[in-house]
Parts: sequence; C-alpha cells; structure tokens
Amino acid sequence: MEWKVNRDDDKPLYQQIYEYIEEKISYGEYPPGSLLPSERKLAQQLNVNRMTIAHVYDELQASGLVERKKGSGTRVSSHKWGILPKGVTNWRRYIEGGSFIPSYPLIRRIRGEAKIMENGFNLANGKLSSDLFPTEYLQSVLSKQPFPNDLEYEHSQGLLSLRETIANYVKEYHQIHTTSSSVLITSGAQQALHLITQCLLNPGDAVAIEAPSYCYSLPLFQSAGLRIFGLPVDANGINPDDILTLHEKHKIRMIFLNPTYHSPTGAILSETRRKKVLEISAELGIPIVEDDPVSLLTFEDEQHMPMKSLDRSGNVLYVGSLSKVIGSSLRIGWLIGPQSVINRLADAREQIDFGLSVFPQMIANQFLQSPEYPRHLDFLRYELVERRNEMVTVLHEILGNKVAFTVPKGGLFIWCKINRDVDDQKLVDEGIKHKILFMPGSVYGSPNGYVRLTFAHLKKESIREAVSRFAEVLEQI
Amino acid sequence: MEWKVNRDDDKPLYQQIYEYIEEKISYGEYPPGSLLPSERKLAQQLNVNRMTIAHVYDELQASGLVERKKGSGTRVSSHKWGILPKGVTNWRRYIEGGSFIPSYPLIRRIRGEAKIMENGFNLANGKLSSDLFPTEYLQSVLSKQPFPNDLEYEHSQGLLSLRETIANYVKEYHQIHTTSSSVLITSGAQQALHLITQCLLNPGDAVAIEAPSYCYSLPLFQSAGLRIFGLPVDANGINPDDILTLHEKHKIRMIFLNPTYHSPTGAILSETRRKKVLEISAELGIPIVEDDPVSLLTFEDEQHMPMKSLDRSGNVLYVGSLSKVIGSSLRIGWLIGPQSVINRLADAREQIDFGLSVFPQMIANQFLQSPEYPRHLDFLRYELVERRNEMVTVLHEILGNKVAFTVPKGGLFIWCKINRDVDDQKLVDEGIKHKILFMPGSVYGSPNGYVRLTFAHLKKESIREAVSRFAEVLEQI
Repeated sequence: MEWKVNRDDDKPLYQQIYEYIEEKISYGEYPPGSLLPSERKLAQQLNVNRMTIAHVYDELQASGLVERKKGSGTRVSSHKWGILPKGVTNWRRYIEGGSFIPSYPLIRRIRGEAKIMENGFNLANGKLSSDLFPTEYLQSVLSKQPFPNDLEYEHSQGLLSLRETIANYVKEYHQIHTTSSSVLITSGAQQALHLITQCLLNPGDAVAIEAPSYCYSLPLFQSAGLRIFGLPVDANGINPDDILTLHEKHKIRMIFLNPTYHSPTGAILSETRRKKVLEISAELGIPIVEDDPVSLLTFEDEQHMPMKSLDRSGNVLYVGSLSKVIGSSLRIGWLIGPQSVINRLADAREQIDFGLSVFPQMIANQFLQSPEYPRHLDFLRYELVERRNEMVTVLHEILGNKVAFTVPKGGLFIWCKINRDVDDQKLVDEGIKHKILFMPGSVYGSPNGYVRLTFAHLKKESIREAVSRFAEVLEQI
Repeated sequence: MEWKVNRDDDKPLYQQIYEYIEEKISYGEYPPGSLLPSERKLAQQLNVNRMTIAHVYDELQASGLVERKKGSGTRVSSHKWGILPKGVTNWRRYIEGGSFIPSYPLIRRIRGEAKIMENGFNLANGKLSSDLFPTEYLQSVLSKQPFPNDLEYEHSQGLLSLRETIANYVKEYHQIHTTSSSVLITSGAQQALHLITQCLLNPGDAVAIEAPSYCYSLPLFQSAGLRIFGLPVDANGINPDDILTLHEKHKIRMIFLNPTYHSPTGAILSETRRKKVLEISAELGIPIVEDDPVSLLTFEDEQHMPMKSLDRSGNVLYVGSLSKVIGSSLRIGWLIGPQSVINRLADAREQIDFGLSVFPQMIANQFLQSPEYPRHLDFLRYELVERRNEMVTVLHEILGNKVAFTVPKGGLFIWCKINRDVDDQKLVDEGIKHKILFMPGSVYGSPNGYVRLTFAHLKKESIREAVSRFAEVLEQI
C-alpha cells in the first residue's frame, strides 16, 4: 500500500483516509463482502494513530459502506455499491485454491516489513546494496545503445547475441564449454528452477537438496508436488554417500546443489566430493542442477570452477545469473544443458511469459563484453571483503561467544548459530520491534537457532549499528 | 540452430559441419545416447546438400562418435566421450514428463519454420512489423533516461511509478478506475493468464472460453488441468445465455473473454451482451477474465470501452498489454483486479521469476506519459487501416468467392473461411512448401477450413504477393 496521507493538506487525516478507502471500494478494489485491513495494520502502514483509523471505520460504517462485527473485522457491505448489487465473486475461495502454494508466512512477513520499515536495518535481503550497482556504466550503455533493426525478432531461448556472449563468458570465467544453442536466457535463476521443476519433474518425484538450502525457501518445489529429501551440509558441502542412501530409499530423480559459497551456510563443496558426486550422478543416471549465483564473488586467491566444467556427458544443468554480480533488477539468468532439454524448456517458457524483454538482454550483452565488467567485479569483491570483515569484527566484538560462525570465503552472507535455545518466530518478531530484519534458519529448513545475515545489502558504516541492534534483540528474548 | 557454414572458408563444408557436431558432442550438448537431427532436417537447417550431411554422419560413425541404425536414426555413442563414460541421464524420460504440456505440434512447426524461412511471407505471426515499432522514440528515451537512485528496489507488483502511470492510462483510455495498488505488472498478457490459471484455479475446474479462442492455442489451460468449454462466437461475440447453460451442466468457475476485436475472429461483443454477461457473472459469482490487447487499435470512430469499465464489484480481472501497441519485445502487460487477488498473484510471481526487469518498466513509464504516445497510436491506426484495406482488396481480387470473411473493425487479423473442404495439416504443409505461413483455425479450436491472416506483420507492399502465394497454396491442395 503505497498511498500516503498528506500532512501538509488542510484536509484532516481521517478524511483523507476515508476518501481513499471509499475510492477503493467504489472501484471494486475492495469488492463487496471483502475484508478491510485491521485497524492496527492500516494504522501502521499509513503511519497514523490507531484512533484515526477507528474514526475512519466508524464513519464508513455510519455511511453504510462497511459492516463491522466483533471478532470478524471490517467488511465492505454487500448491498451498497456497484451497478450489480446482486452478486459478487467469492474471491476468498479462489485465492485459497490454486496449485501454486503461497510463500512462507515468515518470509512474507519479513518482506512486508522491509517495504514499510523506516530507519531500520535489513540483513534479510539477499541483494547487493544500491551503491554496488554499476549505475553510471549502465546509464552510459543505455545512452549509447544502438537499437538493432530487427527489434521485433525474438528467439524463445533469448537474444542470440547475448547467448553467444554468455557462451564465451562461461568459458572465460567458469571453464564451461558450450555453444549459444544450448543456452536459455531466463528471468534470473529463479525462473530456471521454476521451469525445471515444472517441465522435467512430475508430482510425487523425489529430489535431493542440500540441508539447509535456499531451495527450501522456495514454495515452487512444494507447488510442483515434489518430495524433498535433505543432504546435510558440513564444512565441505554435502556428503556424496548420502545421495546413494537417499536413492536406495526414495529413488531420487534430481539433485539440486549450490556447491560454491552455498546459501545459507557459505560452505564450499570440496574438489574430491564434486568429482564423487558427478560419478554417482552418472552411475545412477540422476541429473544435477547446479545453482551457481556467486562463485565469482570470491575472497580467495583462486576461483572454484563449477561442477559443470567437469561434465562432458550433459548430466549437469547449470544455472547462472547476473543478479548477485550486476543487480537483480536486470533479471538476467541462464540455464545451460543438453540441447533437447533446452528446447523443451524454451517451448514451455514461451507459454508462460513469452520470453524476456530485449532491453535488459541488450544491456547485459553490452556490459559483459566491455572492459568495465572485470573492473566492476574487482570493485565488487573489494567492497564485499570490506563488509564481510566489518561484520566479522563487529560480531566478535559485540556478541563474542553468544554466536558461532565460519568466516565465509565468498558470497554475501554469514550463517550464524546462536549459542542458546531460541524460537525463530519470536526472534523475528523481536527483530521487527527493533527494526532489524534477518532470515531465520527455519526458512531454509534448518533447526531453530540459526540466522542468515547479509553483509552485502548495508553500507560498511551501518554494519556496526545493525549488529548492535541484533545483539539487543538477542538480549530481549 | 543458429550456427552457419562459412562458404568463404577454405575448409570444406563437410569438415566444418563435422567439427561443429563433434564440438557439441564433446560439450555434452548432445549427450551420449542422444539422437542427432535427421540428415534431411540438418541439411535444411544448414542450407546444404543432404549428401554433405550424409558424408559428415559417415565420418562421425567411422570415428566412433555416433552409431547409426536403419530406422532409428543417428545416436551419439554411449562409450566414447567424457570423464564419466559409465552412465548418463536418460533425458528423454525427463523431457517427456513434467506437468507442463508442450505447445501444439502445428504451432511449434510454424514457429520453427518462421525462424529458418528465407524470402517467405509470415501471415501467422501475431506481432507488429518492425517498422511499426517506435524505435526512434525509444532510443531517445533510453539515452535521456535518468536512473532512479533506488534501482535495486523492486516491488513484487512492479515499479510503483509505472503502476501509477497505468492507473492513469486505463482511466484516460479505457474509463477504468483503479489505483496503483490494484495493478500488477506482468511479462505481457501471457504471464497474467498463466498466474490466473496457476493460482486461482484447481485441476478439474471448468472454465468457459470463446469458441474459437486464442486461449485454446495456449497449452497453459491444459497444463493447469482445466476442463475447457466453448462459448460460440457470432458477429456480436458470445451469447450470454450460453454461459447459463454451460454453468448448469459443468459448474463454470471462470469465464475468459476477449470482447473487443476478438482473436481470431475480429468479433466485437455488443454493448447489450456485455451488460448481460456482467449481470450473469455477478448473479452466479463467476469471475470474468477480460483480455484486452487491441481495443486501442480501432478503425472505428469510437473506441469500445472494456467490460471492466462497467465493473464496480471487482468481478472482472482485466488484462492489458503494450505488446500490440508498442511491441512485444518490451514485455509489459498488466492485470487489474481486487486487491486481495493482486496480492496473491504478486506473491506467486515472486516465486516464479522474482518480477520483471526495471528497464522495460522505466521505458514504458516514460513513453506512456509522453506526448509521443498518442501520436504513435494515431500512426499505428493509420498504418493498420492501410494494410487491412490492402489485404481486403487483394483477397477479393485474387480469391473472390473462394474465401469469405468479415472486414475487421480493429486489431491485426482477418479471419478467413475457405469455401471448400480442406485439411488444416495439409494446408500448412503446402504453405511451408510455398514459403507462406498462416495460422490454421484448428489451433484456436475451430473446425478445419479457417485461417487467421495477420495484416500487421507485413509491409503494405508485400501483402499482394503474400496473398497470391496463399492463393497458389489453395490451388495446389
């Protein structure tokens, strides 16, 4: 809800709000019979006193626009508005149906708070802060960008020139050999995962994911009706033998891995284990989906090469993305795999959203080929190391042995264990009170008492205060 | 397959092709055991003699890279390549699974031909031709576009400034009243339909669509497991009473309508019927999805207002798009509906692709607010009338009473009945031979003997030759 009251207006606040709600009712945005937000929630969203909202709702009731019942909230009257007073859709029934499962209430809550929070700290957001975004360069790309003549021409796999650039890019940066026809441009890594779960798997299929795992936070696995089994992650990633055990019991059909700077733990799957996993995958004929969003954001001397770089049999579907290196507002990701798989997914994608806009594709294509890109990567690594170091220092200083964590060697997050019993729900609630957001481990399927803290989304100067506030939260519960 | 042989190279063609295939096998793009394209198909795609391909495949076999069996084609050997010679994923099993149904073979075939056809005419493509695309203006928008500071900030419903612009836009152009919080920006109309079928409906639900209908060409309805029932379209659109009949029998849960310049027939749902449909919808509590891609592309004096403009109860989900007015490469569409529905779909969408890139959103926002936009609309209408007139004239002249059609009053298509028995499959095959593409009625669920001809995708000068070629096709079968 982005509408705001105008405090400079002569019109009283309650009247502004009254007119706002009245308008939305008359437009059918709040259809007859639908529930209005609670007084408390609306007061918080509009940043006004709850008494003001109570006044508004009283007036709306007096004019017959809404009906109020103790315990069941404020509803739009069914008989007042519209040219069709007789009937109205029972939207609630529709909203609660559908095969697509809503995201976790805890994640929705944190995202909702992030939108309305003022003067708070967001350690939950997994994105780069805006000052790490190469705004100036992109601005200059846009201003010089020559328009191709055949703008209307789109390929269901994405812009050919960008696919060729990506094929060169993954060769240069990741030692992956492929050609443009085996590359599918997607709307970030998320869409690649969505296409895979929708088009290559069936309800009831068993899949193995890391435990904890970013995938666990994505309802798309549940929405696709998949049975999800966890592969516990230690300091060197998953244990390959666990795949064998799981497969014997459940007949695993696909393995989802994030082997380099794993989210949320930061673990790196060791060389030996990578090879072993590939062997097992080939032996059993189980394909691997390798999610690789941050391997370029390394703080080590040498970069880890993706498992895909070792794959010559097409057992690995490789998912890459610019979201964590350029910015997620570009929405450019890619999937690399056997031609037949790419063709199938490209066809499905044409049904789902008819492909990506050419504009971000042209921008990405320019940027990846420019000498600015490696410079930007260096800048990014430098900045991220600074922020990681700051957060590590401050966590030690302020929280000492109240928390435990491994210093991550790349990526955007610190995975932090809280050295006492805490309830994730209460932790988040208390955090919201203190205007500090973080991701509780349970959204990744880990036990209570873990949090994922992003060091990439705040400027270095803010990290100390954010961690202090997190410490206060720990004190309070 | 975009790779091309280089005829200026000293290296013989067969060797170039040999190396190309060898490379793809070694990269796992053609995994061990997978099927290579047939000699005929590959020869056609690469525009070389079939004997050349036969030579290449012989050589590949001689080196042990592929195995050839009479009747089962050419397969990559299972024992030759890769570090993991033992096993490989049976991708075929994965590709044939998945809950998402592939698009119709006939549509895939036409699209495939469109990509490789040279010197042909495409009357199948439902897009504007590139000269109708406001390239120059968009170029200047891009070059002047000031970057917002909070680029990394994205709202799951889409850029706030664009949603505000759309709210004003639909009020000005369509007499629809709404506010930015009830607008969801989607990747074209297609994504809006996908979200609705995935999130508001359940497998087994009955829905009513026009017969024929564009929706019928979208496997997303079948993929969602919906039972689809047709509402026959006459000169004035569907007959509202048919909804009652269908509902009695099947308990209809949603009605999908394209009331203005209906695709493929061009029909306009009459005022009286619009009101009657809205009444029935309210009476029975069945929501309407109104797809409105081309009502602005009118050749009449007055524009038809969408059903949504009459809806005060939130029974109509309105789907709009810039694809047919600016160009589909922008990928900007929108869904307008009750707040609760929009919130639900925005949440799901965050799971599916994490939202749209900000760049096309910024561009659309600038363009819709500029004085250039109404000028562009005038230009477009003028050009489209010219092309429609040309196609109407030429159809009468060349085909006379061999075909029958109603002159469309807006939109991009002519719906043409062929006045004799024809088989759609044969018609398309013959068209491909003559390098002329069109959409056979059967992909929209109509009986054989209809075609949808796009007059917007060819320049006016080409229409005569395209129609002549279509006439030749009719002669041949």
